[in-house]
Amino acid sequence: MTLEEDALELHSKNPGKISVEASVDIETKEDLNLVYTPGVAEPCRKIAENKEEAYNYTSKKNLVAVVSDGSAVLGLGDIGPEASMPVMEGKANLLKKFGEVDGFPLVVDTESSKEIIETVERVAPTLGAVNLEDISAPECFEIENRLQEKLDIPVFHDDQHGTAIVVLAALRNSLKLVDKEMEDLKIVVSGVGAAGIAVSKILDSAGTENILPVDSLGIISQDRGNKHKQRLASELGVTEEGDLEDAMKNADVLIGLSIGGIVSKEMVESMNENAVVFALANPDPEIMPDEAKEAGAEIVATGRSDFPNQVNNSIAFPGIFRGAIDAEATEINEEMKRAASKAISESLEPEKERILPDTLDKELAMKIASKVKKAAEETNVTR
Amino acid sequence: MTLEEDALELHSKNPGKISVEASVDIETKEDLNLVYTPGVAEPCRKIAENKEEAYNYTSKKNLVAVVSDGSAVLGLGDIGPEASMPVMEGKANLLKKFGEVDGFPLVVDTESSKEIIETVERVAPTLGAVNLEDISAPECFEIENRLQEKLDIPVFHDDQHGTAIVVLAALRNSLKLVDKEMEDLKIVVSGVGAAGIAVSKILDSAGTENILPVDSLGIISQDRGNKHKQRLASELGVTEEGDLEDAMKNADVLIGLSIGGIVSKEMVESMNENAVVFALANPDPEIMPDEAKEAGAEIVATGRSDFPNQVNNSIAFPGIFRGAIDAEATEINEEMKRAASKAISESLEPEKERILPDTLDKELAMKIASKVKKAAEETNVTR
Repeated sequence: MTLEEDALELHSKNPGKISVEASVDIETKEDLNLVYTPGVAEPCRKIAENKEEAYNYTSKKNLVAVVSDGSAVLGLGDIGPEASMPVMEGKANLLKKFGEVDGFPLVVDTESSKEIIETVERVAPTLGAVNLEDISAPECFEIENRLQEKLDIPVFHDDQHGTAIVVLAALRNSLKLVDKEMEDLKIVVSGVGAAGIAVSKILDSAGTENILPVDSLGIISQDRGNKHKQRLASELGVTEEGDLEDAMKNADVLIGLSIGGIVSKEMVESMNENAVVFALANPDPEIMPDEAKEAGAEIVATGRSDFPNQVNNSIAFPGIFRGAIDAEATEINEEMKRAASKAISESLEPEKERILPDTLDKELAMKIASKVKKAAEETNVTR
Repeated sequence: MTLEEDALELHSKNPGKISVEASVDIETKEDLNLVYTPGVAEPCRKIAENKEEAYNYTSKKNLVAVVSDGSAVLGLGDIGPEASMPVMEGKANLLKKFGEVDGFPLVVDTESSKEIIETVERVAPTLGAVNLEDISAPECFEIENRLQEKLDIPVFHDDQHGTAIVVLAALRNSLKLVDKEMEDLKIVVSGVGAAGIAVSKILDSAGTENILPVDSLGIISQDRGNKHKQRLASELGVTEEGDLEDAMKNADVLIGLSIGGIVSKEMVESMNENAVVFALANPDPEIMPDEAKEAGAEIVATGRSDFPNQVNNSIAFPGIFRGAIDAEATEINEEMKRAASKAISESLEPEKERILPDTLDKELAMKIASKVKKAAEETNVTR
């Protein structure tokens, strides 16, 4: 059977990949009197007196909605809320498996930023945190920012920050191998969607001074594109002009978050020595790993599981949510993201074909959680 | 320890009383490739081609949101969404325990009918059904009706219909014992909130011709109160005037869904022989069982677990949702409600102190589900 057939069989046999279970068993009438009426009135009363008690007496603290409008799902594009469910359920499954978090899908039948914000805001009393997912740019920026302003629980758009956190970890470990410093790099980011912007920002905050984000029209500038691209160009102080080919000359690092096949061997050859190429477009990378290596790249990573060095945000988000929840954090700030990234890069001694920890590493999420929690406490974003 | 202390301890030890579990285990990289990217893309594609496939490849079918604004919680009143969580979680627990349904709480931070409708409508692609809960009257009527019009999944306000279904079952079994017929009864319903209206309607549809709903101002009429009360008075053809005391003279049945202590022994004495008294106000019944019996009531029921004959809708809703989901029903219509009620009353040979099945009867929900499914199929409300 092909992977596609296997996947369909698994999804039809175990629809949803998650289940809700009763964590208190009811065997006697006395049990029922506690779980349901009349006993249940007592925690209700306590919370009515002080809302914060919801963290002690309900599932709120550990409940994370994985929210999507289905507008930018994997490489499939705008397929709508119903069709995005399998991805949200997959995330819920991983949240539990690796992070002991009670994630559940919540797909919404609207692509209006205002309505998505409104909807999540209204259901927020149920939740300990919100994982936004597969929402198209630039709407995803406003949705995340406005929700985080309005709510006192963490709101985290995984496509942006999960990716940025893992890319930074992968890059730090690559630099150890090629003996370069973050500060000295020229980095080209191909693709200026949600992930491209978040990656550029985290690299900037990590000390890199020369970052060139490139979209389909060339190196971004303060004069064109949406306000998020313009603001990014301004923040990074981008003054160079040109296309992807121009940008890649003498670059140390290429981070591809765009579309398959757009990087040629010649472009990689034009990079500096000991080049690092992360060709993360899925399913087809910007350049195939063997070609990148032939063209002189020292370290190569992709988004695919069938090549070495898979850059996959599934190694990050379960631990990040676990840590934020354990800290009773009200947001996931930059320090917490950098702490997560550091926990990932420090979890192994990197080798050229192993710059990131294994996706199935069971202890990794708890290592990340512990660092994220500490960062939340140190930066005082706890309840 | 008191019941209250026990309840607090249970809720703090097992916050939420439910958990979300991964129903597919990930042990190998191959497993991860199926549960998450790249395999997950395949069910996404199938559903993008045909939304109905969400019923085959996702948890949608079996996911039921227990929705509340916290405006009318138990006897506690308007305590808000956070404080209503323990009740919603209790229902989610029972949905799983008895009905194998994946219920989860979804409390909303608004008491505007329009906004509640909007919110549930938007998240509906996630769901197989909606259980509305503890929403105050008269808003609950519009919310349920409008949502059911808009959505092609069942929407069920348990406080109304769950109560009505169990009351009808209890009454049918009582009539077997006192040898009266539904058609000949004079029934007084004390309390004309969500439950009182639903009970009056189901009794009307079951054949009773003389039903007198009484609110705090007396027997309802077509000239006063909200439109739901006026419409009910019209539907039932109520012409009598007077207060609760007047209404109860020569009544065969009292169904109390109002407030504790408002029915006197004298009122019960004024009822017909072989009177049936359901004093269901919680925690204090309209009249205590021993007093009702001293005053001549032949059958007495309350809402409490510490007296015989507890009328508790927890015996109904898990089976009703199971049946509606198994039928892939698009609504829960009157025939399905009556089928549920019949399944309950026929599940035992009634005795004076045992007119309803045990709340912990593990087979009951599946008996109800089977009848509800059949009724859905016979009335053609399946997908």
